[in-house]
Amino acid sequence: MTIDYKKELENTARNMIFVHDPDLLIRMIARMMVEKAGISHASFFLHNRQKQGYLLKVSRGSLHKRIPLDLVCIDKDDVLIRFFRDHQSNFIFGREALLLSEAKSAVKGRRLKPAVKQRLSQVVYQMELLEVEVCVPNYFRDELLGLLFLGKKTNSRKFSDEELDFFTALNSSVAMAIRNAQLFKQLEYELDRKHQLFIRTTIALAAAIEAKDNYTHGHTNRVSSISMEIANRMKVRAKKNFDGSFLENLHVSSLLHDIGKIGVPEHILNKRGSLTVGERNRIKEHPMIGVGILKSIKELEEAVSGVRYHHERFDGQGYPEGLKGEQIPLIASIITVADSFDAMSSDRPYRTAREKGDVVNEIGQLKGKQFSPLVTDAFLELCREGRI
Amino acid sequence: MTIDYKKELENTARNMIFVHDPDLLIRMIARMMVEKAGISHASFFLHNRQKQGYLLKVSRGSLHKRIPLDLVCIDKDDVLIRFFRDHQSNFIFGREALLLSEAKSAVKGRRLKPAVKQRLSQVVYQMELLEVEVCVPNYFRDELLGLLFLGKKTNSRKFSDEELDFFTALNSSVAMAIRNAQLFKQLEYELDRKHQLFIRTTIALAAAIEAKDNYTHGHTNRVSSISMEIANRMKVRAKKNFDGSFLENLHVSSLLHDIGKIGVPEHILNKRGSLTVGERNRIKEHPMIGVGILKSIKELEEAVSGVRYHHERFDGQGYPEGLKGEQIPLIASIITVADSFDAMSSDRPYRTAREKGDVVNEIGQLKGKQFSPLVTDAFLELCREGRI
Repeated sequence: MTIDYKKELENTARNMIFVHDPDLLIRMIARMMVEKAGISHASFFLHNRQKQGYLLKVSRGSLHKRIPLDLVCIDKDDVLIRFFRDHQSNFIFGREALLLSEAKSAVKGRRLKPAVKQRLSQVVYQMELLEVEVCVPNYFRDELLGLLFLGKKTNSRKFSDEELDFFTALNSSVAMAIRNAQLFKQLEYELDRKHQLFIRTTIALAAAIEAKDNYTHGHTNRVSSISMEIANRMKVRAKKNFDGSFLENLHVSSLLHDIGKIGVPEHILNKRGSLTVGERNRIKEHPMIGVGILKSIKELEEAVSGVRYHHERFDGQGYPEGLKGEQIPLIASIITVADSFDAMSSDRPYRTAREKGDVVNEIGQLKGKQFSPLVTDAFLELCREGRI
Repeated sequence: MTIDYKKELENTARNMIFVHDPDLLIRMIARMMVEKAGISHASFFLHNRQKQGYLLKVSRGSLHKRIPLDLVCIDKDDVLIRFFRDHQSNFIFGREALLLSEAKSAVKGRRLKPAVKQRLSQVVYQMELLEVEVCVPNYFRDELLGLLFLGKKTNSRKFSDEELDFFTALNSSVAMAIRNAQLFKQLEYELDRKHQLFIRTTIALAAAIEAKDNYTHGHTNRVSSISMEIANRMKVRAKKNFDGSFLENLHVSSLLHDIGKIGVPEHILNKRGSLTVGERNRIKEHPMIGVGILKSIKELEEAVSGVRYHHERFDGQGYPEGLKGEQIPLIASIITVADSFDAMSSDRPYRTAREKGDVVNEIGQLKGKQFSPLVTDAFLELCREGRI
């Protein structure tokens, strides 16, 4: 086998740095070993903190079927692991990679001290058991990150020094790429956690504010999940190209749509009798109170438009601005349908809950009057399928 | 100059992948060129989307003083840029790197078509103007990411093919590392934005809830900033090893400490006369109502303990659990001092605001009784320095 060092190394490095999945990376390397370098089998053990050992992550080539992935684990105090953790191969043979044939000669020879020899013979035993011709350790700084095990060469020749150096260099790049991938995964995980924290805190605070209004228990959550269902259906039906941020904004907006009710006095919100015109007007202030609370948060701009306009009507008879048809942002039109459906089908201070079938019929009749036709169609389809 | 290819490339790659700052990375490479490869000067132009061009990011060596960094920008439609964007060097000379001497011969020679020759002569003119002997382009996929300019070799010899290949390979690794660094920066930026969104939304909702209590305008924000000041001072004074998460949790906890007041009826919160025992007990429920609102959010566990215990007293006479001394979590003890200071120095339904000096004195006298001694000391120090 002849290797074009620079080219292989370069191409591999080029690919590796953008693979942010350590498992995929290791599979790439093992496949390369077997297919390009002509080695009978290649397997890779990666350090795993939880298991306190080294877990088999990939096994390619002739041994493939025999080894169950992710189940085989070499303990961190195993002879083989300790040998490489202590850089013994480098100490005895002057290189990190260990060759079975060299190790066997050294065990038979007289050069080594008995204690070293004994340790090495245990390593030889293990390598023979695993049918491994070469072990290539993989360090990040001084920590043993993983071990690459290689079988025989398919042309039955010996491994050259050049090849061993190449595998070592390659494996060192792999170690770096694995750490890089782990750092990426961690950042992505933190980003996801932070998003969850934001959403959960928003839900908790919105629910607390909602709790002031005796009659709307669970309303916010229901409006939010119905809104998301409608948006996802519209994505399919009307081939709306929502980006991730639209759905995120709709989620937040639907959670916060009634936040402005915190500015409406409790005795009006919970009044059992019918409301005076003045009281009704106080309640109608809640979208703009909500806008006032959230408007300083630039990232919520689109979400705030849902809060502001969720009481507009398609025919222009709504509030606060009397917008009409396409003037009303889609995010608001979706919340309007979900909000109205949930309000009509729940108990209210002035009436008890209505039958679901009735409510759905009425929403159908108000399509193009109170509600956006596109949104209503998606909603009605979901109702027919029993998803709402 | 002789280069140990593999070693240089390997060491550089090893370092580069963990440098998540593109500017630092470019400086590393330029320094290496000048110091290790014996080149009179090296400069690097990096693509900049906003400026629609290539911005000088580093300049090392003999030209160092002449070129103002971050001000020199080569337009994206400049002759030199277009030449490399169209892979002309590769097309004419069979390699990406362009050598001034080769380019000059080619302009004089007969091999090239007039149009190509004219284009190349403009490039030669530019390189001579900039005193550049070698241009090494830097691609990510097919996009021209940057250009490395090298001056003469300090030993006055010509650049060998081997050296040019090495620079090209190295520069290609740099391109990868720069993209990697950019991706990291972007993820970190998104994480920061998400955190800001979480904090700002929490502030907005906490302020909305606080607005129900006529007498506490701005209270939450003041308690939060005083709490952070105290914690930062304790970090220095008591050599407390707060990790980033403690300060984050304190921030959130101080913003949410009174959130439970949303569960206390408005007429009690805003009562002008003195409170009955029953009414007082209703107000005393607010820490546990706050806990009820937030307890399902696992990530807020430490923050919630601040909400729960911010009315405990060091002598055990507080509520809701009557914890004593060190039993009270530090996060709560800090909020207690900040909260009491702000409450005593603001107007309340049952009395007007007190003088700041009086309040500070009283807090000093209550050290070890109502307040944690360590927290009180930090607070008093800040007051003496006029920081509170």
